[in-house]
Amino acid sequence: MTRQKNISILGATGSIGDSTLSVIRQHPDRFRIVSLTCHRSVEKLCELVGKEGLINIAEDPDAQIVVAGIVGSAGLFPTFSAVSSGKNVALANKEPLVMAGRLFIEEASKSGATILPTDSEHNAIFQVLNGRPQDKIRKLVLTASGGPFRDLPLEQFPHIRLEDALSHPNWEMGNKITIDSATMMNKGLEVIEARWLFDMPVEKIEVVIHRESIIHSMVEFCDGSTLAQLGFPDMRIPISYCLGWPERLELELPNLDLTKIGSLNFSSVEPTRYPCLELAIDAARMDRSVPAVLNGANEAVVESYLKGHLHFVEIAKLLQDVMSGYQSISQKPDFPSYLRDIQTLEDAVKADQWGREEAQQRMQERVAA
Amino acid sequence: MTRQKNISILGATGSIGDSTLSVIRQHPDRFRIVSLTCHRSVEKLCELVGKEGLINIAEDPDAQIVVAGIVGSAGLFPTFSAVSSGKNVALANKEPLVMAGRLFIEEASKSGATILPTDSEHNAIFQVLNGRPQDKIRKLVLTASGGPFRDLPLEQFPHIRLEDALSHPNWEMGNKITIDSATMMNKGLEVIEARWLFDMPVEKIEVVIHRESIIHSMVEFCDGSTLAQLGFPDMRIPISYCLGWPERLELELPNLDLTKIGSLNFSSVEPTRYPCLELAIDAARMDRSVPAVLNGANEAVVESYLKGHLHFVEIAKLLQDVMSGYQSISQKPDFPSYLRDIQTLEDAVKADQWGREEAQQRMQERVAA
Repeated sequence: MTRQKNISILGATGSIGDSTLSVIRQHPDRFRIVSLTCHRSVEKLCELVGKEGLINIAEDPDAQIVVAGIVGSAGLFPTFSAVSSGKNVALANKEPLVMAGRLFIEEASKSGATILPTDSEHNAIFQVLNGRPQDKIRKLVLTASGGPFRDLPLEQFPHIRLEDALSHPNWEMGNKITIDSATMMNKGLEVIEARWLFDMPVEKIEVVIHRESIIHSMVEFCDGSTLAQLGFPDMRIPISYCLGWPERLELELPNLDLTKIGSLNFSSVEPTRYPCLELAIDAARMDRSVPAVLNGANEAVVESYLKGHLHFVEIAKLLQDVMSGYQSISQKPDFPSYLRDIQTLEDAVKADQWGREEAQQRMQERVAA
Repeated sequence: MTRQKNISILGATGSIGDSTLSVIRQHPDRFRIVSLTCHRSVEKLCELVGKEGLINIAEDPDAQIVVAGIVGSAGLFPTFSAVSSGKNVALANKEPLVMAGRLFIEEASKSGATILPTDSEHNAIFQVLNGRPQDKIRKLVLTASGGPFRDLPLEQFPHIRLEDALSHPNWEMGNKITIDSATMMNKGLEVIEARWLFDMPVEKIEVVIHRESIIHSMVEFCDGSTLAQLGFPDMRIPISYCLGWPERLELELPNLDLTKIGSLNFSSVEPTRYPCLELAIDAARMDRSVPAVLNGANEAVVESYLKGHLHFVEIAKLLQDVMSGYQSISQKPDFPSYLRDIQTLEDAVKADQWGREEAQQRMQERVAA
């Protein structure tokens, strides 16, 4: 008989939490939930446990697995605590690696924690690698659906409405991530994550548009051979892989019948269509505090966009302005150290905050203009 | 520094031999050819070493790897010798597993030989599995290009010419295999091979048409996740994987750019278009001596077809007749034991021979009629 695993869930009411609970319900003999938190989900009537409560739950000595599914930078500290306490951490929130990738990877290496990539793209690469040596990898290929505007003529971008941006063709996700998918900022943040999760230089990470979201990502090896993971766009697959890891769980899902899907399509990313992706890849290349700054700025801008205060095409312009602002301040003698490099989680929060405030200011200037 | 591996090549002048030599030329420091044989290739002016010579080479104590690339049943004995002597055997000829799968697998288990699947489809599955447990596999999906007649209206099959059948859309191979691809007998034989290589019931092996031959095969697991291996249709990839195994070699081949390929297409196999595939799958289900009988009959029929003595559509009809003949004789009291089951390699040869002779007789009857 297999030993039961104890699970803590950080962010049980988001889409990751839903999928996690759905997987656990299929395997009541295998998993026991020892604690869970939820946050900012009024509809589901959750209690707000706050930062300290989150950290206590992340460190719960009874849990072997922590599912980190809190959207946004709120997940930073509790996820770090889970990593510090050496647990298996199913990482579904992007911010830890985007804001403080080096700190997380170093901490996991110290504590013996295993970071289990739960995003469908990173999980695909994790499944493919399965312990294969890194030095044989030629490149990682992240697939992207391209979001709802992949076919929209560029001249119609000024007419995009919020409800258009909120209707993702393949995945059901929270609003913030859905907008990030439409801008492809989401894919850019995933490039940054992949860089840390798989210790891969940004130059070896490619993004291709694959509209069906069936191939979740690929690895090309040094012999020209590529391995890919495929499946329906259903988060229960990567979550169950992380919960069961290193063993694969049974999951009652329909068989993938490619003959019904008919064809899998691939195209290059048009940079003019997705300027946010370019911004994020630039940030990944610049490294240090830049991804945290961009992430904070993006959260602020998307929040404002979701409130109807901005137009879709302004998202990228504002973020571009924040990046230019960062470039100018970096030349100045009083350039703060947290904008130079992320040495602590607090640095990451400050850099993120700087990005938010810079974005707020740009948005106010815009209203004033 | 990595130790040099010694290689014997059985069948160095076929397409497998060519590709093997091409891989070895890219890694002169890694591999040394200690012996090679060639057979029935007048163009390349090879010496005919004969059965005993082949076996000596297969058992060459200096070789760690034997590449078994002899097309047809001629490869049976030398390949068995290589397996018996506990070597790593890169198995590129189908007949050993088709004619005597159980004997080969049992012998490898006794001798400690590793059978490295070199056919692109089986190699894809081998790469994907990478030591993953069998009991988590829901199904194996073998891809098939569908050959040159996948789009030909069925009513035009009577007009197929030999040169049409010899022009495979994606792979360059020997004539026998090219015809087997056009009839999809080749894929049927691969189902039989997969059954033995991966210890999989025939019911869990599917075939789908994938015209681009980029995804070489797939494995669907119990959680609905599918892993696939992709690459250009170039035999150097699977061969180099087998030669380097368990390490992956560098191979100078163009990068796989799916955005240039555009789309990967999948469709079901139409049974009326590919009756030979159904025959082979039936043979796989019936097991025992039936695959050997069918293989022998197919070799005889295709040989005759290549000489221009038959029409394309007659291939399947003749094989169907041979199978019916087998069914009738199996009801008779003097049903020979080698047609009942394969206990020795000699049984496999006799069953194969029975299939050939039965096919010859059917072909003569046809000429007489």
